[in-house]
Amino acid sequence: MRQVRSVSRRQFLTAVGHTAGSNAMLRAAAVLGAGAGAAACDESTVDPFGHSPRPEDWPGDVGRGRTVAILGAGLAGMSAALELTRLGFECTLLEAREAAGGRTRTLRAGDVASEFDAEQTCAFDADPRLYFNAGPSRIPHHHELLLGYCREFGVPLETFTNDNRAARLHDPRQFGGAPQIARRLRADFRGQVAALLATAIDRGALDQELTAADRARLVGALGSFGDLDASARFGGSERAGFPGQDRAGSRERGTSLDPRPLSSWLDDGFWMARVAFTEGLDQQSTMLQPVGGMDQIAKAFQTQIEPSLTLGAVITALRKRSEGVTVEYEQAGAARELQADFGLVTLPAPVLAGLTTDFSAEARREIGGFQYTSAVRIAFQAPRFWERNHNIYGGISWTNQAITQIWYPNHDFGAEQGVVLGAYSFGGAAGDGLTAQPPPQRLTTAVNQASAVHPEFATEASRGISVAWKNVPFQRGGWGVSTPDVLLQPDDRYYFAGEHLSRLQGWQEGAILSAYRAVDGIVSAVSS
Amino acid sequence: MRQVRSVSRRQFLTAVGHTAGSNAMLRAAAVLGAGAGAAACDESTVDPFGHSPRPEDWPGDVGRGRTVAILGAGLAGMSAALELTRLGFECTLLEAREAAGGRTRTLRAGDVASEFDAEQTCAFDADPRLYFNAGPSRIPHHHELLLGYCREFGVPLETFTNDNRAARLHDPRQFGGAPQIARRLRADFRGQVAALLATAIDRGALDQELTAADRARLVGALGSFGDLDASARFGGSERAGFPGQDRAGSRERGTSLDPRPLSSWLDDGFWMARVAFTEGLDQQSTMLQPVGGMDQIAKAFQTQIEPSLTLGAVITALRKRSEGVTVEYEQAGAARELQADFGLVTLPAPVLAGLTTDFSAEARREIGGFQYTSAVRIAFQAPRFWERNHNIYGGISWTNQAITQIWYPNHDFGAEQGVVLGAYSFGGAAGDGLTAQPPPQRLTTAVNQASAVHPEFATEASRGISVAWKNVPFQRGGWGVSTPDVLLQPDDRYYFAGEHLSRLQGWQEGAILSAYRAVDGIVSAVSS
Repeated sequence: MRQVRSVSRRQFLTAVGHTAGSNAMLRAAAVLGAGAGAAACDESTVDPFGHSPRPEDWPGDVGRGRTVAILGAGLAGMSAALELTRLGFECTLLEAREAAGGRTRTLRAGDVASEFDAEQTCAFDADPRLYFNAGPSRIPHHHELLLGYCREFGVPLETFTNDNRAARLHDPRQFGGAPQIARRLRADFRGQVAALLATAIDRGALDQELTAADRARLVGALGSFGDLDASARFGGSERAGFPGQDRAGSRERGTSLDPRPLSSWLDDGFWMARVAFTEGLDQQSTMLQPVGGMDQIAKAFQTQIEPSLTLGAVITALRKRSEGVTVEYEQAGAARELQADFGLVTLPAPVLAGLTTDFSAEARREIGGFQYTSAVRIAFQAPRFWERNHNIYGGISWTNQAITQIWYPNHDFGAEQGVVLGAYSFGGAAGDGLTAQPPPQRLTTAVNQASAVHPEFATEASRGISVAWKNVPFQRGGWGVSTPDVLLQPDDRYYFAGEHLSRLQGWQEGAILSAYRAVDGIVSAVSS
Repeated sequence: MRQVRSVSRRQFLTAVGHTAGSNAMLRAAAVLGAGAGAAACDESTVDPFGHSPRPEDWPGDVGRGRTVAILGAGLAGMSAALELTRLGFECTLLEAREAAGGRTRTLRAGDVASEFDAEQTCAFDADPRLYFNAGPSRIPHHHELLLGYCREFGVPLETFTNDNRAARLHDPRQFGGAPQIARRLRADFRGQVAALLATAIDRGALDQELTAADRARLVGALGSFGDLDASARFGGSERAGFPGQDRAGSRERGTSLDPRPLSSWLDDGFWMARVAFTEGLDQQSTMLQPVGGMDQIAKAFQTQIEPSLTLGAVITALRKRSEGVTVEYEQAGAARELQADFGLVTLPAPVLAGLTTDFSAEARREIGGFQYTSAVRIAFQAPRFWERNHNIYGGISWTNQAITQIWYPNHDFGAEQGVVLGAYSFGGAAGDGLTAQPPPQRLTTAVNQASAVHPEFATEASRGISVAWKNVPFQRGGWGVSTPDVLLQPDDRYYFAGEHLSRLQGWQEGAILSAYRAVDGIVSAVSS
């Protein structure tokens, strides 16, 4: 086992000052499911996060007589409130909006999606199965803290599919712009890679690396891997499917598809990056989702921490006192103030940057410069043409256009209507461009571009609604992509948390990990 | 597109007489997800099944005034009854058992599983979520006829997972018998294959096959494919996971796992065949299951064809008349007789072999020699230790022991109790051996062997129940594995159907395909 230098909690505070962590790189790589391994695990990389503390690490009742002001009732704030309360701390959790959950939000008929310059009302039919996760949407099976809370709270889960071999890959510049069935490209790549390697082995090119016995065993394994014939050649595979598979009812099961030479489509990395996406640790099967929408988790948390929660409390200033903090906020038009022994700040950095604070210059600098991705999702209600016409049950199609992804619902298969994402873009020109469009224009863009993958979008998708995180009050961004440093340390009695301050930026599990780290810091402070 | 010789329905009856079809090979390959492509698609292979007829092909009302005796109310018999009735035929569907569905059967608390020499009563808690599919369990997303009926009948579907990267691969002879996490072997194989190929390309070994531009593009793609570093080397990947991932709560996220050289584990084909399983066309994501058990489909069909259905009717003889058939059967101890213009025989061949018939010598010979697999499943109720301790949500673990597979439930994640399969074996010594064991011994075998993968089987699994298809009255086998020939033709007024007479042996879709073929034959007969 190769060790990235793993720092204990005690070492952590000294180490973090001079780290040049690679979290943004890790995050970018994880999103693409590629490249993280070798790059991130170089021996010289210091892992600023170290071992994750767990509730079992904390002495019971350690917080008795101590107060904590927790700012922001997203997953970080709520999990911190829950665990701190269990340790005896008296918590007050201030939330600007009228519901807890933060970016964990699900829209249904009649819900209003507010942006700074626009307001959209969700026009889906009134049916609880028709929902739009306008925030996190999937849970990797190894995000065990979040999953543990789901088990504890009784939030039922179901499978979320990332890798559907019936979904499409689409590049307007290749194959004449025709969308490709994922299974065919996958089978062709595996088969041709396996056959090329078998050929190279046969020519003795790898005799340095492989013994004769290994060569024979590897060629045998490549046969299974690529579906090669007895001569280790690739002549096509049933794995690629059959002609007519793009439309239900047109199957020619007895006919095989010719493999297409890699040179005809291995172009600019688009295809392989998408195919490799589901190999990434955080995107591998099994992925999960709560039955009925991601906000079921937020609601369950809210029930747990209800006594500590104050809604509609808009923070205005974060002050330091000797031995404590003073939080200034407005509620129902009135200025209010909260004093506590500790402050736990979970607001997104771009929101925090707009407040008056007594934070150190270093902390304020990191907050002001913290970058967030410009994620956009656009959802439509439609009859489930993807199931009926194309046998697509859940999963994701990818396109090289700005809309980037089409998501099919992973639940209630066979129902007449469903909610389909006509776009999920983040970062770069795609995310920025869609964010800049007014909501009605986003819908037009999505219908136009998604129609290149499924013409039915033009005729069957309606009631569109979008979310551009950067334009949402109290969010101001999708998720953090800068590498945290100063904010991993407390600033006097203020501790910081939120997904952006975790190893798992952009994930609810990261919010909880960051909350545990902050709780751990507060526990250490009162224990010392 | 390379064409297997595709025969039209009209050509079919003449072609089928002299075919040497490769269906058994196709089936065996499909089960292992390997080898089918090149072998099955050789230009010289004749496809005996040709284009699948569809209900849209048949003239409405063509059956008015004609009668059909349908024998066996499994999926083949019921789908035939439904479609023939829609065409105006008057159908009588005789079923030996007291419920329709055939091998599509689901066991719950109190249900009795009868074998020739044994009887087991299902002792699960009385909870509809605790069920055991003692027959088909999953539906590929492109089995569109079956899925179309689910949509029409309103049978809700959910995702079934084949490929769970947290599941285990276990060979007692390798890695000291320690079960391996699927993600790690997959990542190591992809990474090392990609790096070896990149090395061979770098040495010029494939300059004949690849232009300089293609070489560069392919090496780039291999980087995504295998998670290689910038020098196209494989030094391990985050895709492989992290130390401690075999147990929840012991994660070391900042530490990477060393790749293990292929020579240390690429042994006898066990690993790669299992890893390639989910690449097979009929095992690729997305797979589906009905919510609440596979028998929801059988029940929905039964509701549709109820007026035609006679339960408890045990066939004894199948006679020919001029211009029709006479079916002799027993019901409630009395001998009865049914006359019809046509007979449609969907009984499994080993059941049919025991009846008195007027069939041709050729048909009787094929029926008598038709081989069926000896599939066995063994189910237990247990607290969901696989979710709680190991973050395994659905999917399959594989072992080189007789039990072959461990299946985790794909539904109701987070519930306290679940039904887990401690064995799913078919064919060969594994299936035959477990079939020969009395049911109590099967449970002991399963607990002992499954404990090598999850020690919790020994302490937490209870209330076991098994099914060995070969020992089940009116089944006498898992599914057909011989290549059909004579039975694809009618024998005077008798037509034959059942999964064993389809391109998709062992699948419910195959039963329906075979039924459509038989219906097509009857429609042709009355149309000519």
